[in-house]
Amino acid sequence: MWQLYQFPLCPFSRKVRLMLSEKGIAYELWRENPWEMREAFMHMNPAGRTPVLHDPERAITLIDSRAICEYIEETTDRVPLIIGTASARAEIRRLVALFDENFFADVTGPLLNEKMKKRIFLKQPPESRVLRDAMRLAHEHLYYIDYLVDHRPWLAGPTMSMADLAAAAQISVADYLGGLDWNGHDQARAWYSVFKSRPSFRPLLAERMEVIQPPIHYADVNA
Amino acid sequence: MWQLYQFPLCPFSRKVRLMLSEKGIAYELWRENPWEMREAFMHMNPAGRTPVLHDPERAITLIDSRAICEYIEETTDRVPLIIGTASARAEIRRLVALFDENFFADVTGPLLNEKMKKRIFLKQPPESRVLRDAMRLAHEHLYYIDYLVDHRPWLAGPTMSMADLAAAAQISVADYLGGLDWNGHDQARAWYSVFKSRPSFRPLLAERMEVIQPPIHYADVNA
Repeated sequence: MWQLYQFPLCPFSRKVRLMLSEKGIAYELWRENPWEMREAFMHMNPAGRTPVLHDPERAITLIDSRAICEYIEETTDRVPLIIGTASARAEIRRLVALFDENFFADVTGPLLNEKMKKRIFLKQPPESRVLRDAMRLAHEHLYYIDYLVDHRPWLAGPTMSMADLAAAAQISVADYLGGLDWNGHDQARAWYSVFKSRPSFRPLLAERMEVIQPPIHYADVNA
Repeated sequence: MWQLYQFPLCPFSRKVRLMLSEKGIAYELWRENPWEMREAFMHMNPAGRTPVLHDPERAITLIDSRAICEYIEETTDRVPLIIGTASARAEIRRLVALFDENFFADVTGPLLNEKMKKRIFLKQPPESRVLRDAMRLAHEHLYYIDYLVDHRPWLAGPTMSMADLAAAAQISVADYLGGLDWNGHDQARAWYSVFKSRPSFRPLLAERMEVIQPPIHYADVNA
């Protein structure tokens, strides 16, 4: 069976979990704290990042969340998530990159650094200026989601795709850390609320990190 | 014809240029300075990043260097660069991500910031501590390339792939900015020297940025 080396608040781990669950592929969760740089994990992935998807029986080790998702997409027929014409697939991959790179750099990354890494690992207080910037940029990203779902049923087009999974993974971590103000984002909230009620998403929303608790609305599908 | 909106020292633009040239696909270069945030460019790509590949006749706009490369790979038969079994393709994509993300964050990004952006745009001197860190991390990446080409003819396996193009694109920018010390990296140097003599690479190596000149060895295929 696949073993997913992951960290609960790693948005890239969450994206892979969502994909595997949507496709009905069984996997075991192996908790990995990336900052510990555990030797066996560093040996498996020299870049030291979660997620890693490993199958010990077939001796397959997959590294990098986008490479993992492309592999799963290429090797399964069920529930295609990178779909349509070459242009439609390019639009899906553009949005995956937008959330993996820009949303993460602007919002999820700074929130994780200030609210988790500093608390658990560095024992420092968060910097309020950094948190304010992240929340301001989060508004801009939520406005872009509002715009997209005003024009399309799902983020990249007529059906659910990897773009929705990548966005929901980032948003779920930012929301867990209290970094999102949903006021004024009715379209984005409606899209995310549909997502929260999916069976693939429920286990993620039920998890809690030891010392960090999410806001009350976090796991509420009606919020 | 394709129009590539690109910046000469953007490693992601260079990766796409190398791919198009290796595949023999004609394209026009359109110079774009990302920091200017030109309105027409921001309208085309809200993320504001180079490269963007645009075909005005067919009204196709492709954004994000990996999405562009996957599109080109899917729509051309010539010179496949994401090749082999699903596992081999995953290994190619792992290495592309390693160079696009880790090499860029550790080496190319800081060098561009200190040696180009501060000089041309911010009119500030570079920080020597940041430059030292980038050059130290560059050594670690070059050691990893030494290791890979000790075990394989090309970075990801038996044939040239997107992994080689992604690595060469990052390395060429870092080398232009004088951030690489090749001493002790004979394997990496031999691999890169083969690359420098390819017809796809020659136009890149011949270009010069206005105020910033590369070291003497930069375009020398025997160096």
